[in-house]
Amino acid sequence: MSDNSGTPLAAIVLAAGKGTRMKSDLHKVLHPVAGRPMLLHLLAAVGDLAPERVVVVTGALSEQVEAAVAPLGAKTALQAEQLGTAHAVGQARDALAGFDGDVLILYGDVPLVGPATMRAMVERLHAPDAPAAVVLGFRPADPAAYGRVIADADGRIARMVEWKDASEAERAETLCNSGLMAVRSADLWPLLARVGNDNAAGEYYLPDLVMLAAADGRGSAVIETDEAEVAGVNSRAELAAVEAAWQGRRRAAAMANGASLVAPETVWFAHDTVLGRDVIVEPNVVFGPGVTVADGATIRTFSHLEGATVGKGAEVGPYARLRPGAVLGPKSKVGNFVEVKKATLGEGAKANHLTYLGDAEVGAGANIGAGTITCNYDGFLKYRTSIGAGAFIGSNSALVAPVSIGAGAIVAAGSVVTADVAADALVLVRPPQVAKPGWARRFREIMAARKAAR
Amino acid sequence: MSDNSGTPLAAIVLAAGKGTRMKSDLHKVLHPVAGRPMLLHLLAAVGDLAPERVVVVTGALSEQVEAAVAPLGAKTALQAEQLGTAHAVGQARDALAGFDGDVLILYGDVPLVGPATMRAMVERLHAPDAPAAVVLGFRPADPAAYGRVIADADGRIARMVEWKDASEAERAETLCNSGLMAVRSADLWPLLARVGNDNAAGEYYLPDLVMLAAADGRGSAVIETDEAEVAGVNSRAELAAVEAAWQGRRRAAAMANGASLVAPETVWFAHDTVLGRDVIVEPNVVFGPGVTVADGATIRTFSHLEGATVGKGAEVGPYARLRPGAVLGPKSKVGNFVEVKKATLGEGAKANHLTYLGDAEVGAGANIGAGTITCNYDGFLKYRTSIGAGAFIGSNSALVAPVSIGAGAIVAAGSVVTADVAADALVLVRPPQVAKPGWARRFREIMAARKAAR
Amino acid sequence: MSDNSGTPLAAIVLAAGKGTRMKSDLHKVLHPVAGRPMLLHLLAAVGDLAPERVVVVTGALSEQVEAAVAPLGAKTALQAEQLGTAHAVGQARDALAGFDGDVLILYGDVPLVGPATMRAMVERLHAPDAPAAVVLGFRPADPAAYGRVIADADGRIARMVEWKDASEAERAETLCNSGLMAVRSADLWPLLARVGNDNAAGEYYLPDLVMLAAADGRGSAVIETDEAEVAGVNSRAELAAVEAAWQGRRRAAAMANGASLVAPETVWFAHDTVLGRDVIVEPNVVFGPGVTVADGATIRTFSHLEGATVGKGAEVGPYARLRPGAVLGPKSKVGNFVEVKKATLGEGAKANHLTYLGDAEVGAGANIGAGTITCNYDGFLKYRTSIGAGAFIGSNSALVAPVSIGAGAIVAAGSVVTADVAADALVLVRPPQVAKPGWARRFREIMAARKAAR
Repeated sequence: MSDNSGTPLAAIVLAAGKGTRMKSDLHKVLHPVAGRPMLLHLLAAVGDLAPERVVVVTGALSEQVEAAVAPLGAKTALQAEQLGTAHAVGQARDALAGFDGDVLILYGDVPLVGPATMRAMVERLHAPDAPAAVVLGFRPADPAAYGRVIADADGRIARMVEWKDASEAERAETLCNSGLMAVRSADLWPLLARVGNDNAAGEYYLPDLVMLAAADGRGSAVIETDEAEVAGVNSRAELAAVEAAWQGRRRAAAMANGASLVAPETVWFAHDTVLGRDVIVEPNVVFGPGVTVADGATIRTFSHLEGATVGKGAEVGPYARLRPGAVLGPKSKVGNFVEVKKATLGEGAKANHLTYLGDAEVGAGANIGAGTITCNYDGFLKYRTSIGAGAFIGSNSALVAPVSIGAGAIVAAGSVVTADVAADALVLVRPPQVAKPGWARRFREIMAARKAAR
Repeated sequence: MSDNSGTPLAAIVLAAGKGTRMKSDLHKVLHPVAGRPMLLHLLAAVGDLAPERVVVVTGALSEQVEAAVAPLGAKTALQAEQLGTAHAVGQARDALAGFDGDVLILYGDVPLVGPATMRAMVERLHAPDAPAAVVLGFRPADPAAYGRVIADADGRIARMVEWKDASEAERAETLCNSGLMAVRSADLWPLLARVGNDNAAGEYYLPDLVMLAAADGRGSAVIETDEAEVAGVNSRAELAAVEAAWQGRRRAAAMANGASLVAPETVWFAHDTVLGRDVIVEPNVVFGPGVTVADGATIRTFSHLEGATVGKGAEVGPYARLRPGAVLGPKSKVGNFVEVKKATLGEGAKANHLTYLGDAEVGAGANIGAGTITCNYDGFLKYRTSIGAGAFIGSNSALVAPVSIGAGAIVAAGSVVTADVAADALVLVRPPQVAKPGWARRFREIMAARKAAR
Repeated sequence: MSDNSGTPLAAIVLAAGKGTRMKSDLHKVLHPVAGRPMLLHLLAAVGDLAPERVVVVTGALSEQVEAAVAPLGAKTALQAEQLGTAHAVGQARDALAGFDGDVLILYGDVPLVGPATMRAMVERLHAPDAPAAVVLGFRPADPAAYGRVIADADGRIARMVEWKDASEAERAETLCNSGLMAVRSADLWPLLARVGNDNAAGEYYLPDLVMLAAADGRGSAVIETDEAEVAGVNSRAELAAVEAAWQGRRRAAAMANGASLVAPETVWFAHDTVLGRDVIVEPNVVFGPGVTVADGATIRTFSHLEGATVGKGAEVGPYARLRPGAVLGPKSKVGNFVEVKKATLGEGAKANHLTYLGDAEVGAGANIGAGTITCNYDGFLKYRTSIGAGAFIGSNSALVAPVSIGAGAIVAAGSVVTADVAADALVLVRPPQVAKPGWARRFREIMAARKAAR
C-alpha cells in the first residue's frame, strides 16, 4: 500500500494513443511481449511496489484497454481528446481524488521499465534535496530528436529542452528524457494546472512541469537508466525489438541460473517460464505462458510448451507439443509428434511417437505406443481416459473416452477401445487377416493400363 | 515496350560464368534466393521496366540457363569463350539486331538490383548532359580490390580505374564500380568494337568503354546505390548473405504493413508471400512460394506453408504443414502435425491433430479428428475425398478415396471408410472388443523370463 | 608417438575445477559443444599430434572425468587440493614418469584449440633460439583483467605479468596470456619445483615458470592465435558462446565445400557431420552426432537427424526425424512427421507422412502410406519388419513385428498385419462398414439438449 519510502504510492499509466503505425485493430499497449500484453508487463512491475492506486489513461480503443486492466483492479480514466502528455496525466485527477503521496507517471508503450528503476525514482524524490520531480533519463546510442536533460553530476536538472528548441550546445548533451517521472501528488496537480499549450502543436507537455517548478525555486532531479529499459514501441518493428531485448535478458538469466541453452538465440521464453538447474534446452524451443521445468529435465529441439509442468529428469521432444494442463512426472518421456493436453503422465511413463493424449491420466511406467489417440471429444463434450500404471497401449490404438485401461493391461495394436479394460487383461479389437494371392500384381497391371490410356 | 524516358529499352544479362567457387552442378545464377533462382529475381525487376528485349548471355551449363529463361521470353546468346565482360556483352549483338534504344547491362549473379535503381540509371542517361554511359556505383564498407570511379559531385566521371592499376590517391577514393551500366545501343556497339585486350589477362573489359567515350570527348556519369543492392554471389556464403539481406528487407516490410513477427529473424519469406493486416507470425515459420495469408490470421510456431491460401482469422499450427493447393477458409484451424495438400477447408472447419488431408474438400464447421488420414493414392492415381459441412470424423479414421461423407454425418473412431456415407448418418467400421483376463500378467512373466535368459 | 619435431610429445590437460558458475551436477569440461563433451574436443585435437601420453588432471567430480576419458586411453591424475595451475601440472608428474620429450599444457575448459596451433607451439619450442617455454598469446577485443605478455616483434618474452600487478604501461599492452604452454619435460619438472606461492591467494602459478627460466638466463617465446580459439568456458553463457563460435566456423566450412545453407545461422551441426556436394539444407535443421549426407540430397526445414545416413539425391523433411540407424537409399524420401530408427529405405522408397519406421527394412520403390506404424516393441523386446521392393502399405496400417510383407504386395488401408504377406498379394484386415441413417442428427439433438442443461 506504500512504497519503500513509507509514503503512499500511485501510478498513472498513459495509454491513450492506439498507435497508428502499428496498423492494427488491437490497441498498441495490448500487443504482447513474451506472451503478455505490454501494458500488463508494466502493471506487474509497478505492482511490485504495492501502489495504493493505479490509473490507466485511455483514449482510442478504450474499451480494449479497460477490459485488459479490469481484472487487475486498475482504474481507467478516459482522455477524450489527445492534447498532450500533461493533459493526459490530468485526466487521472478524479481517479486519484483524496490520494496524497508519490505519483509515478509511466507509459503503456514503454513496457520494460522494472521495479528497481521505479523504486530508485521514488527514493530520489525523498532524497534530502527533495526535488519537485524526478525524471528518468537515458543516454541513447543515437540521441536523435529526443528531448535533452541538462543536469549537473548529481543529477540536479538545470534545464529540459525539446530537441527542436535546443541550441547546438544543448543538442550536444547526451542525456535524454524518457518521459517517465515521479512527483508528489501535492505538487503534481497545482503544477499541471499551470502547464500551457502555447506551442506549435497546441499541446500540453509534461516536461514543462519541471520548468514551472524551477520558476518557483524548486529543483528537479534526473536519474539514469539504460536505453534498453526505456525502449518505446510505436511500430511492429519496435515491438519486435523490445521482444528481442526482453528475450536476451531472459536467456542470460536462465543460463546464469544453471540451465544450458545450446543456442540461446533460438529459445523463446514467456514472461513466467521457470527452469530448474541442469535443465538442457536444445535449439529451437518455444515456451508459451505457464511452464515450469524441474531440475535435470531435457527439452529437445523443436518443442513447444504452454501451461505445462515437466518433472525432474523428464525428456521432452524433439517435436513435442505440451499444451495447458500437461503434467509430466519425473523421468517420463514425451517424444516426437506427440501432443499432450490436460493430461498427466506418471513417473517413467512414455509416449514417444505420433500420439495425442488429451484429458487423460497415464500411470507410472505405462507405455503409450506410436499412433495412439485418446478420443476425448464427441463434438459436444470432452471425456477422460484413464490408463493404469504399467499398462501397454499397442500402436495405432484409439481409446474412446470415457474409458479406463487397468493397471498392467495390454491393448493390442490397432484396437479401438470403447469399453473399460480390466487390470492385467489383454484387449483385442481386430478382425481376421484376409489374403488375396496375386491380387496386387493384377491390380498393378490394370492400373498401369488405365494410366497409360489417360 | 519502352522505358520511362520514352525510348525503347533492352537488357543484357551476363550469366556465362558457372561459378566454380559454388562447387555445384547447378549454374550459379540458378541458385535460389527466397525460393526463386537469382537470375529470375533480376529478370522480374527489369521486367517492371517493360523492356523490348532481354538477352541472357550464357556460357558454362548454358542449357540450364536457357531452360530457366525460356518460359519468360528472354533470348539467350552463347559466349563460347570467356574473354571478359566487354566480350560477353558483344555476344548479345545478334540478338539485339535492329534494336535502337537504351541498353541496361546487368549481371545474373548480382540479383538484388531493383527496378527503381534501373530506372534511375536510364533516366540519368537521358539527363541534359547526355552521358555516353551511366555506371552504377556504390560505396562498400570495405572497398577492397574493387575498381574505383573518380567523379565530381554531380556524378560526372573523370576516370575509372582497376584497383591494381590505381594510384595511392585513387585507392583512397571510396566510390566503386558495380559493373552495371546503361548505354544507348547506338553508342554501345561502336564503342565495344574498339575495346581491346591489351592487359595481363588478355580480356576485354567493359569499363574501358567509358574511357573510350571520354577519348571521343563524350562524358559518362555515375549514380550511386547501397552496397546491399549490388551484392554479388560467387560462393554459397555470399548466396546466404544475399538471402539474409533479402529476408531482412522483407521482414521489415511485413511489419511496416501491419503484421506482427514475434521473432522476425526466424521467419523466412518467399519472393511472393502476401500477409494481411494483424496477421501474427510466431517464431520459426517458413513460407515457401505462393502463400497468401488474410487479415487477422495467426501462423503459429514451427509452421511451413507453400502454395497455400489462409483465410481471415484462421489459425495455422504450431507444426502445421500447408502444401500447394491448401485453401483454408475464414476462422478454420489446422493444428499440430497436420499436413494439408490440395484440400479446401470451409469456414470454421478444424483439423487439429496428426492428420493428413490430401485431395479433399472439407465443409464449413466440419471437425476432423486426430489421426485422420485421407487415403488419396493407390500407387497409381489420386482420388478425392469430400466431407460435408458439420461432419464429424472420429479419431484414427482412414477415408479411402474416392469417398464422400455427407453433411452432418459422424464417422466413428478408428473406421476405415470405403463407401459413401449419407448425410446425418453414423458410420461404424469396427469389430467387437475381445478381452482376455489375466493374459497380460502371464505375458509379462513369460517375457521377463525370456529376456533374463538371453 | 612423436610430434612433428621428431621429439616425443605428452599433453597435460587441466580439468580439476568443476566450474561452480555452471551451477551443474555435471563437471564443467563434460558439458557438450557440438554434441561432444568439450574435454573430448580437446583430446581429439591433441590426438592429431599423436602424443605418447595424455594426462588429465582431475579434482572435483573426478569420477565423472575419469569415466569420460578412460575409453580414450588417457591417464588421469588427481589434484586433491586446488593450489593453482602450477600445482595442478605438478600432479601429472607421476603419470609422466620416464617420459622425456615435449609437454603441452592445455585446459579442459578451453576446448577449441586446434591441432595446427598446438603444432605451432611445439615447433616454436624447437626453433633455433630454443626457448625454455612457449606461451600461447592472444589479443582480445577487451583485454580486461588478463595477464599480459610483454614480448618483442619476434615473440621473445621480456616479461609476463598478472593484470593486478601490472603497471599502467604494461596494462596498455594488448597481448594476453591464454595459459597454454609448451615446455620440454627436462625443463618442466625442475622449474615447476621452484615455483612458489608467495602471493595473495597462496597459489602456485604456472606463468611464474617463465620468469624463473628467465632468471636462469633462458628465454621464452610467445606465439599468437585468435581470441576465438582460446575462448574459455566458466559459465553456461560462455559455453553457448563457444558453441556459437564452433557452429559459425562449421557452417562456413560446409558452404565452402559446396553445400547450400539457406539460413546458415539456423543450422546446427554436430562435431562429426559430413555433408556432400550440392546438398541443400533449408532453415532450422539440427544435426546430432553421426550423420552423413550424400551429394545432392535435400534436408528440408525443421528436420532432425542423428546417427543417420542419407543417400544421393534423397529428400528428408520437412519435419523428418532420423534417429540412429536410419539409412536412406538414393532418391528415397522421408517426409513430414515421420520418424525413422534402425531402418533402411531402399532406392526411391517413400515414407511421406505421419509414420514410424523402427527396426525395419524397406525395399526399393516401396511406398509407405500415411500413418503407418511398425509395431516393433512388445514392452520387452524389439522385433523387425521387412517390407519388400515395390510393396504398397496402405494408410493407417499397423505392421506388428516380426512380420514380413512380400515384394509388390499391397496392404489395404487401416490393416493391422500380424502374419506375413506373400509377394504380390493383397492383404485386408477390415470389418464391414455399418451405416446408421439419421443417427448423427438424433445424437446432435440429444447432446445439444444435454449441453444446454449443464
